[in-house]
Amino acid sequence: MSTPIPVIVVGALGKMGREVVKTVQQAPDTTLYAAVDRKQVGEDIGEALGLGAFEIPISGSLQEVCVAAAQEKHPVVMVDFTHPEAVYENVRMAIAYGVYPVVGTTGLSPEQIADLAEFTDKADMGAVIAPNFSIGMVLLQEAAIRASQYFDHVEIIELHHNQKADAPSGTALQTAQRLAELGKTFNPPQVQESEHLSGARGACADAAIRIHSVRLPGLIAHQEVIFGAPGQIYTLRHDTSDRQCYMPGVLLAIRKVTQLKRLIYGLEKLL
Amino acid sequence: MSTPIPVIVVGALGKMGREVVKTVQQAPDTTLYAAVDRKQVGEDIGEALGLGAFEIPISGSLQEVCVAAAQEKHPVVMVDFTHPEAVYENVRMAIAYGVYPVVGTTGLSPEQIADLAEFTDKADMGAVIAPNFSIGMVLLQEAAIRASQYFDHVEIIELHHNQKADAPSGTALQTAQRLAELGKTFNPPQVQESEHLSGARGACADAAIRIHSVRLPGLIAHQEVIFGAPGQIYTLRHDTSDRQCYMPGVLLAIRKVTQLKRLIYGLEKLL
Amino acid sequence: MSTPIPVIVVGALGKMGREVVKTVQQAPDTTLYAAVDRKQVGEDIGEALGLGAFEIPISGSLQEVCVAAAQEKHPVVMVDFTHPEAVYENVRMAIAYGVYPVVGTTGLSPEQIADLAEFTDKADMGAVIAPNFSIGMVLLQEAAIRASQYFDHVEIIELHHNQKADAPSGTALQTAQRLAELGKTFNPPQVQESEHLSGARGACADAAIRIHSVRLPGLIAHQEVIFGAPGQIYTLRHDTSDRQCYMPGVLLAIRKVTQLKRLIYGLEKLL
Amino acid sequence: MSTPIPVIVVGALGKMGREVVKTVQQAPDTTLYAAVDRKQVGEDIGEALGLGAFEIPISGSLQEVCVAAAQEKHPVVMVDFTHPEAVYENVRMAIAYGVYPVVGTTGLSPEQIADLAEFTDKADMGAVIAPNFSIGMVLLQEAAIRASQYFDHVEIIELHHNQKADAPSGTALQTAQRLAELGKTFNPPQVQESEHLSGARGACADAAIRIHSVRLPGLIAHQEVIFGAPGQIYTLRHDTSDRQCYMPGVLLAIRKVTQLKRLIYGLEKLL
Repeated sequence: MSTPIPVIVVGALGKMGREVVKTVQQAPDTTLYAAVDRKQVGEDIGEALGLGAFEIPISGSLQEVCVAAAQEKHPVVMVDFTHPEAVYENVRMAIAYGVYPVVGTTGLSPEQIADLAEFTDKADMGAVIAPNFSIGMVLLQEAAIRASQYFDHVEIIELHHNQKADAPSGTALQTAQRLAELGKTFNPPQVQESEHLSGARGACADAAIRIHSVRLPGLIAHQEVIFGAPGQIYTLRHDTSDRQCYMPGVLLAIRKVTQLKRLIYGLEKLL
Repeated sequence: MSTPIPVIVVGALGKMGREVVKTVQQAPDTTLYAAVDRKQVGEDIGEALGLGAFEIPISGSLQEVCVAAAQEKHPVVMVDFTHPEAVYENVRMAIAYGVYPVVGTTGLSPEQIADLAEFTDKADMGAVIAPNFSIGMVLLQEAAIRASQYFDHVEIIELHHNQKADAPSGTALQTAQRLAELGKTFNPPQVQESEHLSGARGACADAAIRIHSVRLPGLIAHQEVIFGAPGQIYTLRHDTSDRQCYMPGVLLAIRKVTQLKRLIYGLEKLL
Repeated sequence: MSTPIPVIVVGALGKMGREVVKTVQQAPDTTLYAAVDRKQVGEDIGEALGLGAFEIPISGSLQEVCVAAAQEKHPVVMVDFTHPEAVYENVRMAIAYGVYPVVGTTGLSPEQIADLAEFTDKADMGAVIAPNFSIGMVLLQEAAIRASQYFDHVEIIELHHNQKADAPSGTALQTAQRLAELGKTFNPPQVQESEHLSGARGACADAAIRIHSVRLPGLIAHQEVIFGAPGQIYTLRHDTSDRQCYMPGVLLAIRKVTQLKRLIYGLEKLL
Repeated sequence: MSTPIPVIVVGALGKMGREVVKTVQQAPDTTLYAAVDRKQVGEDIGEALGLGAFEIPISGSLQEVCVAAAQEKHPVVMVDFTHPEAVYENVRMAIAYGVYPVVGTTGLSPEQIADLAEFTDKADMGAVIAPNFSIGMVLLQEAAIRASQYFDHVEIIELHHNQKADAPSGTALQTAQRLAELGKTFNPPQVQESEHLSGARGACADAAIRIHSVRLPGLIAHQEVIFGAPGQIYTLRHDTSDRQCYMPGVLLAIRKVTQLKRLIYGLEKLL
């Protein structure tokens, strides 16, 4: 069996970070190389997460970790789910030291992404940035794009807990955007519609796709894409109940990033 | 076995009328007494509907039919699903001749209904007017009212074919209205919501209940009432696929109306 | 404002117990009186649950706690979600000392329940035992019982995570049982059914109600009761995503039990 | 604009046949060439279907129609949704006369299909046979096959009206079969399952895929494929409400069959 891929987790005490630490430690072909966080520096990461001693102290400096990683024979991967401000610098540092970045943070600007792509190209290295690491959601979007070729009518319902402030959800907007890229305008009207109460017909997103946002306690994160044609309805639905759902996507990116020679944006390009 | 209840169907060639004719003819305790329509007068109603000869010619005059009905020993019931303009006069005529009205037409004004109630009272007779004869929908609304006592958060999704022009649907508005009658304001916000695309959060109906209207070919008529509380979701859904769904409610009204002494508005009062 | 109801939580470190401790501490009209558990005796219950100091040490003896409770001016309530073996003795002890029991454990035999009811009667006290404290599920069952009067066809789909070993779920069986109590046999066949693959048509429970059990990772706990009639479908669905969903039912029972004079079985009798 | 494709509809008075007649007459690039049926021979097909005069009498002989079609400059297509016994002979006759067959009948044996494929090859012609002409269902199966690469757990629920005698439905079995072709065994157990009521866990189809069959009046034809993984559920659902849903698939086959040089089995190969 080949050597497990060593992984640096940045923001290891964050909600996503701790899930990544656990996953990387359990998978047979990856291993935790270092855990970086601003808090609890020096403490054992395993102990800090209530998982027993890992013999890996939390480091406060990504740079120190990268310096060490640069000495390794095998390529090292960095997983970063921290804030957009931090991520840009972290990715540049990783690449500077030959560490392969896997980034799950949303909020990087198109300019920043283009900039990092150029930086990666120059270093002749790979990197993965994905706004959504859920394979189920990526499959849903892919199936929706496929269905759009044959269906002319589609609406999206997304449902989240009532502590989510913004509507529509970023993922629903992204689904609409990806369908709109086909260049088609959906939902040609059959009748002159009239809204007795404003907002009833939802938001009109790209390509005339309607999005409806439901917010209720008890919901977690759900998206439904409904295609209609005379005599039939075709529905794609994704329900998220736990951050674990992102881990297969993260592992996939860890396994593939070291073989890449450029920056890949979007998990769909790895499937 | 007791004599079957004789039933006059007004608008017998209409979409609902023909369904009522069939139902009344098939049920063991009802029988078709007369079929009234403006079209195909004189033709056999059974032949006209492709059901074989009934030996009952279509009559063009409700009055003539009522005159005959007034001679019968057993009380006669009139079922009317025609237009609101016609219905008001038809009900007055029926009551004048001692015929018991069952009306499924929406669109009567509150004044007209009050007026007919007074007229019915004076005649010491019963009548049933219901905007929705679907027992399933009435049960859904009843269950929703019950749930509202225990849940503070609720949203409604109604889904119809894309030839429906108005949104939200009358039935969804009525569900919201009935929940609002409890005197409670639903959906106290947990966070400051912000709509990036106007309409995403749906229409805000009575008592802050949100309604989302989906319109797609392939849909028929569907309503979903979703209650949320921490850790749980309780959903009530009704799907209509055929006018047959109204027939059990119509039969129920036919069976009960002759025992009533006043005008009843709403099928829920007969359940 | 009246004095908050003092509550003893038995099994305070268990999954349900810790949720009850939190709830009782947060609600304005209840207060934690004592926490009983076999483990971590003497430690502060708040500290043990990571909620900060409560100044209430975990007690290893329910009897000692009951002796103290018997001295209080105001009636004390005991909440017990532990194992059936323990519960029977705990309830007898509570009643012996004038403490009102609220029990969420399933698995008490009908004889044990009858026995406890007699014991409660003699003491002229109240008690609540409920196999399911989820108000949403109780409302679903109530609405299903109501619908059964008007629908002759019904099937149940219950969906749980794939670590649940038994099928059908206890709650689905209980739903079927409660519908069967109406004395009706459901699902009169229209055609001679034939199963090409055994089990396709699900389990045949009480009153010919079909139950289908789905088991998949990613599911939590869901139940769907589907009623059908010509032209319509009426669906009731309950989704559980967190133990929090039981807390409103527990609070309701705490508030009502001190006013009862007998043992009540089933949350539905308190709604 | 090019000449519309002339189409022979066999079984033109059947449920599917009449839908095809209407569709072919309405589409801009197809035209009804002949209508064949055993009944009402000589009557105008438009009149017989209540669509007004088409000036096309129903023919009782497919052979006579094919003889005429063989004289046409443009290739003629035959659409056949009749019984399996008739279809085999009809397809051979069509090919013998240079008419391109599009067949929607299920029930041809693998030997018959192989035989017709050979016959088509020899004639250097195309033919399309598809057990399911619903584009939505074909897309669902395609998306399910795609998802199977990433999900190890899947169950199918199919729901039909209670006049369907067989369970599971042919389409659900076919979905399972197509997923099984990937060579993977699904649903590795996490616990030792136990069925308290036999059938609760559904039928165990190919590759350990579970199928649950619900039968209720009010349902039409629905299929749900549910994939699960830790923290997520991905659901694909198809609802059929009317035979119209097959028409886009039929038109697609009509348009493509004249360009084919061999027999194609399955609509998915045309998408």
